[in-house]
Amino acid sequence: MSLYSSLFYSSDVQSLLSEETTVAHMLRFEAALATAQAKNGLIPTNSAELIAAYCTVDLLDFERLKKDISLSGNAAIPLVKQLTGIVRKQSEEAAGSVHLGATSQDVVDTATVLTIKSVLAWLDDKLPALTDRLIVLTQKHRETVMIGRTLLQQAKPITFGLKTALWLDGLSRSQQRLAECRKRVLVLQLAGAVGSRNASISASVHQDVADQLGLQPSVSWHTQRDNLAEFAAVLGILTGSLAKMANDVMLLMQTEVAEVLEGKAAGKGGSSTMPHKRNPVTTTAILANANRVPNLVATILSAMPQEHERSAGRWHSEWDVLTDIMQLTAGTVERSLELLDNLEVDTQRMRQNLELTNGLIYAETVSLALAPRLGKANAHELIEKACALAVTQNKHLKEVLREQAIDLPDLDALFKPENSLGQAMEIIDMILQKQATGPV
Amino acid sequence: MSLYSSLFYSSDVQSLLSEETTVAHMLRFEAALATAQAKNGLIPTNSAELIAAYCTVDLLDFERLKKDISLSGNAAIPLVKQLTGIVRKQSEEAAGSVHLGATSQDVVDTATVLTIKSVLAWLDDKLPALTDRLIVLTQKHRETVMIGRTLLQQAKPITFGLKTALWLDGLSRSQQRLAECRKRVLVLQLAGAVGSRNASISASVHQDVADQLGLQPSVSWHTQRDNLAEFAAVLGILTGSLAKMANDVMLLMQTEVAEVLEGKAAGKGGSSTMPHKRNPVTTTAILANANRVPNLVATILSAMPQEHERSAGRWHSEWDVLTDIMQLTAGTVERSLELLDNLEVDTQRMRQNLELTNGLIYAETVSLALAPRLGKANAHELIEKACALAVTQNKHLKEVLREQAIDLPDLDALFKPENSLGQAMEIIDMILQKQATGPV
Amino acid sequence: MSLYSSLFYSSDVQSLLSEETTVAHMLRFEAALATAQAKNGLIPTNSAELIAAYCTVDLLDFERLKKDISLSGNAAIPLVKQLTGIVRKQSEEAAGSVHLGATSQDVVDTATVLTIKSVLAWLDDKLPALTDRLIVLTQKHRETVMIGRTLLQQAKPITFGLKTALWLDGLSRSQQRLAECRKRVLVLQLAGAVGSRNASISASVHQDVADQLGLQPSVSWHTQRDNLAEFAAVLGILTGSLAKMANDVMLLMQTEVAEVLEGKAAGKGGSSTMPHKRNPVTTTAILANANRVPNLVATILSAMPQEHERSAGRWHSEWDVLTDIMQLTAGTVERSLELLDNLEVDTQRMRQNLELTNGLIYAETVSLALAPRLGKANAHELIEKACALAVTQNKHLKEVLREQAIDLPDLDALFKPENSLGQAMEIIDMILQKQATGPV
Amino acid sequence: MSLYSSLFYSSDVQSLLSEETTVAHMLRFEAALATAQAKNGLIPTNSAELIAAYCTVDLLDFERLKKDISLSGNAAIPLVKQLTGIVRKQSEEAAGSVHLGATSQDVVDTATVLTIKSVLAWLDDKLPALTDRLIVLTQKHRETVMIGRTLLQQAKPITFGLKTALWLDGLSRSQQRLAECRKRVLVLQLAGAVGSRNASISASVHQDVADQLGLQPSVSWHTQRDNLAEFAAVLGILTGSLAKMANDVMLLMQTEVAEVLEGKAAGKGGSSTMPHKRNPVTTTAILANANRVPNLVATILSAMPQEHERSAGRWHSEWDVLTDIMQLTAGTVERSLELLDNLEVDTQRMRQNLELTNGLIYAETVSLALAPRLGKANAHELIEKACALAVTQNKHLKEVLREQAIDLPDLDALFKPENSLGQAMEIIDMILQKQATGPV
Repeated sequence: MSLYSSLFYSSDVQSLLSEETTVAHMLRFEAALATAQAKNGLIPTNSAELIAAYCTVDLLDFERLKKDISLSGNAAIPLVKQLTGIVRKQSEEAAGSVHLGATSQDVVDTATVLTIKSVLAWLDDKLPALTDRLIVLTQKHRETVMIGRTLLQQAKPITFGLKTALWLDGLSRSQQRLAECRKRVLVLQLAGAVGSRNASISASVHQDVADQLGLQPSVSWHTQRDNLAEFAAVLGILTGSLAKMANDVMLLMQTEVAEVLEGKAAGKGGSSTMPHKRNPVTTTAILANANRVPNLVATILSAMPQEHERSAGRWHSEWDVLTDIMQLTAGTVERSLELLDNLEVDTQRMRQNLELTNGLIYAETVSLALAPRLGKANAHELIEKACALAVTQNKHLKEVLREQAIDLPDLDALFKPENSLGQAMEIIDMILQKQATGPV
Repeated sequence: MSLYSSLFYSSDVQSLLSEETTVAHMLRFEAALATAQAKNGLIPTNSAELIAAYCTVDLLDFERLKKDISLSGNAAIPLVKQLTGIVRKQSEEAAGSVHLGATSQDVVDTATVLTIKSVLAWLDDKLPALTDRLIVLTQKHRETVMIGRTLLQQAKPITFGLKTALWLDGLSRSQQRLAECRKRVLVLQLAGAVGSRNASISASVHQDVADQLGLQPSVSWHTQRDNLAEFAAVLGILTGSLAKMANDVMLLMQTEVAEVLEGKAAGKGGSSTMPHKRNPVTTTAILANANRVPNLVATILSAMPQEHERSAGRWHSEWDVLTDIMQLTAGTVERSLELLDNLEVDTQRMRQNLELTNGLIYAETVSLALAPRLGKANAHELIEKACALAVTQNKHLKEVLREQAIDLPDLDALFKPENSLGQAMEIIDMILQKQATGPV
Repeated sequence: MSLYSSLFYSSDVQSLLSEETTVAHMLRFEAALATAQAKNGLIPTNSAELIAAYCTVDLLDFERLKKDISLSGNAAIPLVKQLTGIVRKQSEEAAGSVHLGATSQDVVDTATVLTIKSVLAWLDDKLPALTDRLIVLTQKHRETVMIGRTLLQQAKPITFGLKTALWLDGLSRSQQRLAECRKRVLVLQLAGAVGSRNASISASVHQDVADQLGLQPSVSWHTQRDNLAEFAAVLGILTGSLAKMANDVMLLMQTEVAEVLEGKAAGKGGSSTMPHKRNPVTTTAILANANRVPNLVATILSAMPQEHERSAGRWHSEWDVLTDIMQLTAGTVERSLELLDNLEVDTQRMRQNLELTNGLIYAETVSLALAPRLGKANAHELIEKACALAVTQNKHLKEVLREQAIDLPDLDALFKPENSLGQAMEIIDMILQKQATGPV
Repeated sequence: MSLYSSLFYSSDVQSLLSEETTVAHMLRFEAALATAQAKNGLIPTNSAELIAAYCTVDLLDFERLKKDISLSGNAAIPLVKQLTGIVRKQSEEAAGSVHLGATSQDVVDTATVLTIKSVLAWLDDKLPALTDRLIVLTQKHRETVMIGRTLLQQAKPITFGLKTALWLDGLSRSQQRLAECRKRVLVLQLAGAVGSRNASISASVHQDVADQLGLQPSVSWHTQRDNLAEFAAVLGILTGSLAKMANDVMLLMQTEVAEVLEGKAAGKGGSSTMPHKRNPVTTTAILANANRVPNLVATILSAMPQEHERSAGRWHSEWDVLTDIMQLTAGTVERSLELLDNLEVDTQRMRQNLELTNGLIYAETVSLALAPRLGKANAHELIEKACALAVTQNKHLKEVLREQAIDLPDLDALFKPENSLGQAMEIIDMILQKQATGPV
């Protein structure tokens, strides 16, 4: 929790990542374990039922739990102790069957995976919504001409739809990655003290717990952390792609450019002392998040060389950092949806800005048009001089050309942005088509 | 190049990443482009043949090329200028057909992808070799008992084969990831000045260039860098998994543990002043590399929000960093192969170290064996006291138990590591089986 | 807040970094500003008194404040709005004097500096305590012999006091840095909308606000963030130095080494299933923190190129990250104190471990002693052979030498660790002396 | 070395960081050590003279040196071996005196410090030059009005001189930091195998070597790396401050803003196909470097927890990364000098851009001017409405006010940027004054 959680985070996902939810996932693990062990004849059925019944967050002394973590070094040990105590009040025998054969890391890691699963489900809901907005925006602005900019300089015309289509294209690859990583990430951790399992967590129990929790079975990954690292990286890439979009909007929103605006919500982005300002609050939040996530991913990667059968420190460094990565990524997704929902596009200003260079952005087009008549080298030289004149005399290039009697029959057409779009329409349609048919 | 390149890098991959190879990839792009344009009737066939013939590194003035990069801001502009000059000496017309319709970033990015392709091919050769060593090691030490350690404390017995099998398991997921990312990473960049393509780089030309270079066609990814970020992350994860292995070896190689040793090569790891020392050179190099890669991946992730249609700075920051990531990952792979090729395993010392706690590592096993007779709680309490006695009297736990007349018929068996391995054998076999049959 | 805050953080510093304290600092700024403006005749004195009187956290609607932040993009705008509303109920005139001439970033940045000031004060209390523990430990173990280890191999004897003295030496440089950075870090931000100040925040008002808050005056640092970056780096370095200490303890605590132990607190570090284990909880927490801080510092550094007169995103990315850095550093300091307070040193085991190599660690000493008699080269050769024999025959080097009739008169003395300490005593005394006299 | 070294690096500093220079520093260390030992009667004077005479890079087999590093794990071992071999050809006795009492890390670390010393000297030359350019620029543009921008929106007028003065202010604090860190960074490493020194490297020898090399004496910092971390951070902060300047220039250079331009060098920044473009090559290089350095600093910080008396991996990870940080920082400094040397400032365009909002940027000024007459609240409300009208009717705010008969006597003056500069002049003069008098 932070003063700024409503700005940077998603409130939906904050609850998925809360202390209570995390502990609830740990209890789900314990309940599933006891249930599976009873099913496999390893503990009495009524013990398992009792344990499962008491695996509920409400019964816990949360303050004590959090305090005890500093003594035990992880959340599982004091949680199991409290759970055992609660169950013992009902049955000594059942108390003896709590957490049987499992190790702390089994509980903590599986709870992390269950959290990830819930965040992936949330993303499965939100990313198609984002995709839909981008499809609509692309369709709407397929032919909306604007200037394309390279190295922050005006280069040649594109359409706004091409820009949004490429945002969409990048985003859809993140969806692919999220789909592909599931089989590696959504796996049960249940491997016992040193990763070798034991009689209480036989292959059959393992499979059964996995089934109950909707996870894949797996050999120990206590100190093989590539899966979590992949998940962190995939979220980092998603955040980066959304930040690219936000960065474009931020730049397009500059007073001097003013082609796109964050929508005005009541009270949003205002400046108390400067009534004319519309501050880019949403894009700002996205860019702030995106400045943080790469380094958090680095922490997860640097935590990978975990010692022997359980790490002392590197494992522990993952916990809050994975939470942060999920928080910031979800916040970025939610802000991106808000951004697209309210985006204002000033197509007139886009057209005006195409005129800022007095036609110089069409120099190459004109040169190519002259080439068949004058030869490529001559054409290029002639246009270069004309451009220089246009700059020094502050005239439109078309005018300079006319003054030099280079009045190509189609001169006006050459200076229309619509005629300088290359294959933008085909590319847009290709991207939209892939969305319509393609497997994500 | 660095004083330390032989220590940290792979000499194979250094040549794949050299300046000459990079420029050669750029020239391959130009040759393929001209060839495709001739095939599509956009330039004369003999121009294309001439261009292709002169796309060779030997003809370039390399020193000038490198100097001019500081004026132009990338390698493509001065390269195209030199190439055009070379071709012009033969034919003015052909000179006019060089690099037609392409933009600098098309050349630079495609060369990067061709480099990546060559590094992936190298990995396709080396990773199965690594996997093979791990399979052999696992088979050989399937039943070699040693202590499992958690938080750097002796915990319970495992086998060395279980440890190596889990190294193998992590590594094989990296192979999966490398396979999955190819479709997104090995893509042509050929999109023209602002990503909209143009008549000279039609869909047909694009497809043809892609075919010639063995890449997938793609819409512009000039400022959509998720693919490169994924590649960087996948290498970062691979490095992390190998560093986990190296870290285990480093810890096992400590004088006080001495269970595993880096093999002795002539002159390797010696200390001039301390003849008894065998320094861990290879694992040291791997751990050094692994300390660097995560932050380099962060740089690639942080470079993602690239401005508009071409970035001013973030794109440029990728170049040397991607090279570094490939260098360090390849060096890590090569060092790992050397490590496994020469690894010395002291199975006797492993067995000795199992005795360091005077039997305490079997306390849980004994407690579970007593439980049916005494009840779980009583058994636990009794063993806890026995452990305390063993510690204070510096006696073996078995002896303490015998003194207390707790002479279970199978007491000796309970203190044999072979009987505390849980399902280690099944897990090992499962992992080996997956290697034998499984799709990577 | 996190499930793990008691493990990784300091509860003292959590309250210094809480939302309430942060907002209280912002209100202190507003009160000081009004007071200074009244003193300079810019607003009525009773307005200032009213404002100052209402600058109290209790009156705020905190939930609304946090919600409004997502609309305004920072905490100052909704806070000033609430404060103004509260004051307006008393006096319209006074309401018009709230936050006069200041900009949001003035409030937010100054509150950050006030937080930093409080954390520095906390460190000023704790670091000398840490230093004291290290001095005592060094004095106590000045002559406690143990093996020195390089590349995790036994090398030559040192004393435990030398190790702790060098920990102390590193820590004292961090104290120096903290002292030196104050003049740059503890500065007022009060520069107005675009950093040019204005009539309401004249030089005199600026100085007066600085005086009230105990800060140095400063020109605008709205987008010059070197000071915060320095503070972040200085904390990162402190954390790194403490992690070096923790890492040594962790390694010394390994079952096979067992020279130093984290003290046993009630219930601390136990394993429910493995009664013999003492897990390193405190060092684990320190190492976990230290794995995170470097990348958070990188975020602050990467946030430095802030745009124009106020950044859109990079500034915002600093907020929670600075908090995290302070949390984790303070947690590391507090854990380090606990570690040293309870450290158990097994001097007997240290002495035993010196014997693990059968005297090989003295090979160089013996070789040097023989050199005057046999010549350096001959001596070296002879000893090398003797070492080889010692290893293959598993005999003590001293014994081998005796068997070879190389019975130097002082042979026993050569194999005493006390005689292989070089100038350890002088170095220790030098470091302790510097503590006693030196300016930190 | 990289294809891009002329773009990102400084050629001066590349030679300071070359393999040859590094090895030369290592030889300087060996020569100084022998000289000091002779002076202290520990080795014969003619041996020392011989050693010193042969401590020259020319005599080395560099290829073999680099190859042997992969066997020994650092550069010192094979270097000392070659040096000893060379000396032995002259005198067996002298050969026995090479590298006496020192350890590999002493050589490598001291060479690193000597490199740092040379880079600091280079910075001592270049940073005042940078400062001078900024002083001149600030003096020249003290009163050059332009718009101040917050969150990339036009806010209120400033002068370009205020912007450059604040760049200067940030830079001068980096000079302070560089000055302050010297005493901790420029220290000799000469501590022997395990940091305890020995008879051959007595306090007197240590002091004498330090004197010869122009370094401070120091106890062992073999595994106390705070000093190097500080140096890395200080360079990282310097790079960040220069990147802030470059980022401002980049944004000001946008086609739509065009207030400042990178100077045109022959052939610089041109686009072959778009003759109108002037690409920001220099600022691009700076921003690329600045995207890399923060994560390299993180690597140095994360390398701090070095094991025992010498690290296995973390130490090794520092070597190339420190080189990279120095390369990139020096490149950034050199590019910044070039940028300032050639900067073109379009003061007319700055003035034009002040008019882009139709006077809205003066709204607050007008509101404040009306307040005494109408009351603050009324004034604010009236101006807010006028602003809204100005926007919807696309009229200048002044015109709207006149139409509403709000013709303040000084209305024209209120809309002059010169009257909205707050205390910009005083702030500029304060910063320039500090440069003139102040201690850096």
